[in-house]
Amino acid sequence: MHFASLNDIRDACRDLPPGDEAAAAAAAARQAQLTKPPGSLGRLEELAAFLACWQRRPMPQLDRVHVAVFAGNHGVAARGVSAFPADVTAQMVANFAAGGAAINQLARLAGAELAVVPIALDQPTGDFTRDAAMTTADFLAAVDLGVQAVPASCDLLAVGEMGIGNTTAAAAIAAALYGGGAARWVGRGTGIDEAGLARKRDVVDAALIRHTAVLSDPLSVAAALGGRELAAMLGATLRARQLGIPVLLDGFVGTAAVAPLARLHADTLAHCRAAHVSAEAAHRRLLDVLGLAPLLDLGMRLGEASGAAVAILVLRAAFACHAGMATFGEAGVSERNGDP
Amino acid sequence: MHFASLNDIRDACRDLPPGDEAAAAAAAARQAQLTKPPGSLGRLEELAAFLACWQRRPMPQLDRVHVAVFAGNHGVAARGVSAFPADVTAQMVANFAAGGAAINQLARLAGAELAVVPIALDQPTGDFTRDAAMTTADFLAAVDLGVQAVPASCDLLAVGEMGIGNTTAAAAIAAALYGGGAARWVGRGTGIDEAGLARKRDVVDAALIRHTAVLSDPLSVAAALGGRELAAMLGATLRARQLGIPVLLDGFVGTAAVAPLARLHADTLAHCRAAHVSAEAAHRRLLDVLGLAPLLDLGMRLGEASGAAVAILVLRAAFACHAGMATFGEAGVSERNGDP
Repeated sequence: MHFASLNDIRDACRDLPPGDEAAAAAAAARQAQLTKPPGSLGRLEELAAFLACWQRRPMPQLDRVHVAVFAGNHGVAARGVSAFPADVTAQMVANFAAGGAAINQLARLAGAELAVVPIALDQPTGDFTRDAAMTTADFLAAVDLGVQAVPASCDLLAVGEMGIGNTTAAAAIAAALYGGGAARWVGRGTGIDEAGLARKRDVVDAALIRHTAVLSDPLSVAAALGGRELAAMLGATLRARQLGIPVLLDGFVGTAAVAPLARLHADTLAHCRAAHVSAEAAHRRLLDVLGLAPLLDLGMRLGEASGAAVAILVLRAAFACHAGMATFGEAGVSERNGDP
Repeated sequence: MHFASLNDIRDACRDLPPGDEAAAAAAAARQAQLTKPPGSLGRLEELAAFLACWQRRPMPQLDRVHVAVFAGNHGVAARGVSAFPADVTAQMVANFAAGGAAINQLARLAGAELAVVPIALDQPTGDFTRDAAMTTADFLAAVDLGVQAVPASCDLLAVGEMGIGNTTAAAAIAAALYGGGAARWVGRGTGIDEAGLARKRDVVDAALIRHTAVLSDPLSVAAALGGRELAAMLGATLRARQLGIPVLLDGFVGTAAVAPLARLHADTLAHCRAAHVSAEAAHRRLLDVLGLAPLLDLGMRLGEASGAAVAILVLRAAFACHAGMATFGEAGVSERNGDP
């Protein structure tokens, strides 16, 4: 699988396989027979049907859960938009390899395999206040890395990122796609101070002016204002849809990275659930725009797929109930008063 | 440990051991050194300090997690306040024993041991529209069963219940303690229809009138309007505080069961976290009154400690990060710009 042009991606979005509504309905029918009041497991019931729908089988599995974390560096980091120096991207990739980061602990707890894909960390993207962050060729190469990172067969994919400066890119993408400027989409990211926040807003508003010509094309926005790790997340999410793999989106950056797909075609993210809502206020705004209801709201704002990894645990809870509970008939438990 | 009178419980609430603030501060100091932006794990960081505080050690453990589910029957169930017949309480206890209920799946997933304590299921409490649900002696006996159900040594306790009709008892307790009558506290429970909902409201308002004389005394409210499984939850939660065991409260019934403790002394539930907010609307109201911020909001309304069991997973995530992550120094990751 290879996207040779932006048009290849556009074509793919027009030709996506639907979920299996019969499998989802069968899962919902099973939920109604399990020993609990109908609907009383709330979102756990919906998640069981969601997994069935996109895995295309009434009894979904969670044997193989894959967490893919993409890392990239950003020219715009040199503008002082982050609380951390750009070196931290590579240092954190080393920390991932050594097993010392949050996502290492959370993926292990969630029974998920973790793959980290650093992308050209020694070549930051262009400073998008002056140039495009990436050429079309660079963008497509990063998208392809995301495509290649998706296992041919897995039951659930969580997608995350690491990249100093990338909440600035995410804010720029969101502003480009949905309007409102920096005021609506820029927040403190990893914790920048007041002066840095002002710089970050200026950078995003400058980028919107610099790239006015491409704002009407979502993929050009992703190339001009995004980053390599964001492009890879877009590619991985699109590929998962083609392969029938449900996806957990992570935080603000992870959601902004795939928003261009939703802007191309409203249904493109139907196989995705928002793992959590970040403490970065713009994330809730973006989820609202996309019609995604987050599973968790724990005030997290780390990235690395950390929120998605915690949400894997919620999907495991949904799956455990769906697969393991007895039915009313099996357990000899009476159904509702007045029910047959 | 045995409470021989209501005054024994009142005395215990006045003489509760505080948490270990030094251990909590040490945990928070460790969090600040871990390889992530300060505060970026949100509530996971607070939960690490919470466990440290009540386990009274800077590095908490989650080796032994215990789920206690108490079951009882309610005289008021005969008034048609539930969507399910009262027989279901005992049938579900059998289902717990056979491993077929939601809590069986969720406790196993969470790595927790599960103990179910059925309490005199063949002797429903009194119909509290006419009599007290329990005599003081019956209430104290049920409290004692809760006390005895707490392991002398465990790292976390989740408390749950099963009892057809017990959201009516929970609503009556909440209305008695905090006012507002049935209109504020009665909901659909397991899913009763409109006519049943009206009966349920009438039952609660009738109970408040019948028991006006005891409304000013929280423990007498718990005896007159509660149930055996609620009394046991109160006993277990109080005993856990004495033993230095942090507690996860479950849903509306589990929270109403311990609300009399909070009414006796504001600090009594400091060792508790609200696992989730139920779809039963009164639960959010009660959590607000108690100043408890739920960890999860998944639309669950099953009871059985099911919400608490999912929240155990969140505490395991908090613990995994706290115990397993590398510090900035260990990982060679740069701290914030301008930090030493």
